[in-house]
Amino acid sequence: MNGHNNYKGIQTALQDELKVGLQHDLYSLENCHIATLANNDTPYGLVENAACLIDDGIITWVGDRRELGNDAQWDQVLDLGGRMVTPALIDCHTHIVHGGDRAQEFEMRLNGASYEEVARAGGGIISTVTATRDADDASLLASALPRVDAMIAEGVTLIEIKSGYGLTQDSELRVLRVARQITQHRPVEVRTTYLGAHAVPAEYADRADAYIDDVCIPTLRLAHEQGLVDAVDAFCEGIAFDTHQVARVFDVAKELGLQIKIHAEQLSNLGGTAMAAGYGALSADHIEYLDETGVQAMAAADVTAVILPGAFYTLRETQQPPVAVLRKHGVPMAVATDANPGSSPMTSILLAMNMACTLFRLTPEEALLGTTRHAAGALGLSDRGMVAAGMRADLAVWNIKHPSELAYRIGFNPLHQRIFGGRL
Amino acid sequence: MNGHNNYKGIQTALQDELKVGLQHDLYSLENCHIATLANNDTPYGLVENAACLIDDGIITWVGDRRELGNDAQWDQVLDLGGRMVTPALIDCHTHIVHGGDRAQEFEMRLNGASYEEVARAGGGIISTVTATRDADDASLLASALPRVDAMIAEGVTLIEIKSGYGLTQDSELRVLRVARQITQHRPVEVRTTYLGAHAVPAEYADRADAYIDDVCIPTLRLAHEQGLVDAVDAFCEGIAFDTHQVARVFDVAKELGLQIKIHAEQLSNLGGTAMAAGYGALSADHIEYLDETGVQAMAAADVTAVILPGAFYTLRETQQPPVAVLRKHGVPMAVATDANPGSSPMTSILLAMNMACTLFRLTPEEALLGTTRHAAGALGLSDRGMVAAGMRADLAVWNIKHPSELAYRIGFNPLHQRIFGGRL
Ligand SMILES: [Zn+2]
Ligand SMILES: [Zn+2]
Repeated sequence: MNGHNNYKGIQTALQDELKVGLQHDLYSLENCHIATLANNDTPYGLVENAACLIDDGIITWVGDRRELGNDAQWDQVLDLGGRMVTPALIDCHTHIVHGGDRAQEFEMRLNGASYEEVARAGGGIISTVTATRDADDASLLASALPRVDAMIAEGVTLIEIKSGYGLTQDSELRVLRVARQITQHRPVEVRTTYLGAHAVPAEYADRADAYIDDVCIPTLRLAHEQGLVDAVDAFCEGIAFDTHQVARVFDVAKELGLQIKIHAEQLSNLGGTAMAAGYGALSADHIEYLDETGVQAMAAADVTAVILPGAFYTLRETQQPPVAVLRKHGVPMAVATDANPGSSPMTSILLAMNMACTLFRLTPEEALLGTTRHAAGALGLSDRGMVAAGMRADLAVWNIKHPSELAYRIGFNPLHQRIFGGRL
Repeated sequence: MNGHNNYKGIQTALQDELKVGLQHDLYSLENCHIATLANNDTPYGLVENAACLIDDGIITWVGDRRELGNDAQWDQVLDLGGRMVTPALIDCHTHIVHGGDRAQEFEMRLNGASYEEVARAGGGIISTVTATRDADDASLLASALPRVDAMIAEGVTLIEIKSGYGLTQDSELRVLRVARQITQHRPVEVRTTYLGAHAVPAEYADRADAYIDDVCIPTLRLAHEQGLVDAVDAFCEGIAFDTHQVARVFDVAKELGLQIKIHAEQLSNLGGTAMAAGYGALSADHIEYLDETGVQAMAAADVTAVILPGAFYTLRETQQPPVAVLRKHGVPMAVATDANPGSSPMTSILLAMNMACTLFRLTPEEALLGTTRHAAGALGLSDRGMVAAGMRADLAVWNIKHPSELAYRIGFNPLHQRIFGGRL
């Protein structure tokens, strides 16, 4: 640090340095507005004409530029040309590591095929399970990376990735392993969630309990031993597992000290959300059919609601999640893509934000909180999702004038620059 | 032309040459599959293991690679690595040249503001009209180019752009002029449509006929004189103009030899479509409320239906266009973004295709026909939108295995390469 202010003519040099990995110097972001998403009684926690100090990949100061003074103690200045800065986006619910796609099934359905005909043609989740089991590590990784790239291009720095399309010990471990490998190939963080209780595989048809005992729980223990799991999820639904089966998986998660999430109340109200709240779950996801009692259970246990409009849109559901009731009880709402090959082949977190507003009437501010602060909450992380001192310097710089534009536009990406752990 | 086959090792050199503008040589596309969208009794007009010859920006041959033989008469080969080729995409209905945005209004509505409150705050179409009138050529162009870039990035080579947010002589001419200027800044074609009859401006409130006489028709004549108009459009709706007012504009269009399009039956059935069919219109756009009589009028006059799911989605409409009736009467369906700041702030033609399938149950093939062959039809062009001898070499090369993937994915862009008039 050179201890004096050197504002001019160094942005290009700084950009070059940051690209090659400089992150141990202290630098400032200036000539920008920052939607901090912190609770500062301003919509979006907006600070106009702001500045931000970044030291070793951590935000050390954020506020009005004038408060910073001119006797700067930092090395370099990144002039953002009056642009808008937000926390980097977080996609807290995805299934992006899988084999195959379901375009053919999509086409069959639109040509009038019934679910039975699709199933007879090898469609449905089974086709993804088969393709995932048949895929090796390299091909799973190769097919996931373009999805990761699409997310990174929209300012995402952290992606949660679930297993659940393998449903055998080997394939579930492989999916989790590949999900972790992504961070060696792309500048992004990954949180892995074990979703062995996603569906009952064909070889265990009508024997869901046996699948839980023979495959799901032993694989969870093994995945945990191998350090592949950050959290445990389950699909609690008539077409998947009931609350008792899910509870047996969650008991093991708890024993192993793993965090808990649940796919619940998507197609009907089975009480999965309240059950998961009893386990102190981080999040309950989908929850279109959740009632007020369930919402109260979430509020009492500080569970985040993860809103997934992509699946609602694709499945042409009409039952909306209880947004007003969630607001009333102060339940934080995250928003995610649910990126998966069947019910939500969507890789755009910005589009998920627009859909959350258009289809579920979230406000643009709620949508942005949902992909930043509350998405971090859904992953149990308290050092992300806000622009505030002490937070990781994961930031997105946008070609927009107001943060509401992020949810307003449809299929348009105004990202100017992503800052990942302090690096451009 | 060197008269002998030189397959190997020249792709990179060819790519470099094509990028700097070589287009007078004959070259081939090989190692690809081509969804020609031609009527060849195969879904998508698909030719597997295909080849295509391009001479001076025109397609001269397309078919099975084996039929081409090996005594090639062309200079160079572009190896496409087994990828899928389609006609380049055409967005045949946009309003992308305008001032301002409506993000604030989007936010106000989601925060519970009534339409009156939005209007009192200066929202609604008036805000776009004011911003467009206040914008100069340079700022209109600067705000339109990122939207154009988003479209180009998805393989679009031809964009129709409407006026209609100026509603004065000066501003309408300026919008059309800027729309034409886009082709000097980006490798894309533009067709301009005069939509002076888009809305009644505030200064003519309750005097729609006077607006038609004083502004709309004189400006149309002037725009035509200046060579700024390819077609004439009008918004026939209770909140805009009735069939008699629109007919007066169309009479002038006909007198000037200009092609006709109409925004009709979007919110109610006023008979605009049948009226426009009587003028031999190229297309009737929106048509959610069209009845079978109107569809028959379209069929009789060979009018293309332009399906605009972005506005349906944004406005949360429930009345779907009569897709089954359009099919029954053989009316071709185009699909477009309707990119505009109010009812469809969407710049993704791929997303329009997905929405056409998901919301209106078009098949993926119909959606792709809708953004290629039938989009060309909606613009009165017969030398675009197919991969066939004699067509312009506007092509898109995709990282997909089957053309159904284009409509299946949501918010994901698998474009590998765009070929525009023979150039990469
Ligand atoms: Zn999911
Ligand atoms: Zn329109």
